Amino acid sequence: MMLHLICYDIENNRARTRLSKLLIKIGMERVQLSVFIGVLSKYEKEELLAKIEELVSEDPIYHVLCIPLHEDMLSGLDEIAKVPLDWEYLKGEKLCMII
Amino acid sequence: MMLHLICYDIENNRARTRLSKLLIKIGMERVQLSVFIGVLSKYEKEELLAKIEELVSEDPIYHVLCIPLHEDMLSGLDEIAKVPLDWEYLKGEKLCMII
Repeated sequence: MMLHLICYDIENNRARTRLSKLLIKIGMERVQLSVFIGVLSKYEKEELLAKIEELVSEDPIYHVLCIPLHEDMLSGLDEIAKVPLDWEYLKGEKLCMII
Repeated sequence: MMLHLICYDIENNRARTRLSKLLIKIGMERVQLSVFIGVLSKYEKEELLAKIEELVSEDPIYHVLCIPLHEDMLSGLDEIAKVPLDWEYLKGEKLCMII
């Protein structure tokens, strides 16, 4: 299980909406309009990537990045935000998000 | 010098455009609509983050992430794209991008 960031640019509205719904369904958190963060197992990631390939296959322009966020990377990450992310929640170390 | 990914959600059009122009000016490549990748030194990153803070300060909603992409992370990164990124170029290991 590891934290991952997924960001995408998908031209086709239908495919884009289907992808965002899929990411929410598998428990990832939307942190920006087209950026999601969440914990994925190796198997979940493989399944997700296969589904994304299928979703975007007919799209003329698409670009999706799935980046593993190692623990030691998080300390080197910079965030400039009105409302910073709750990283403990994203990592699954907390059961609810304090808002 | 290290490869970094910067992604943002900025509500204010003017601030968003100013940030994208700034990122292009300092040599980062736009890989998605609101995602840039490029090599930054520690000093360049500090300067850039300070400028971003200034740019977004009056925006009601903003979220910017600056993520260092270590070499060993790149091998674990997945990309689903019609036109995959030229990582050697992004890392500054090539002088031109083959298009």
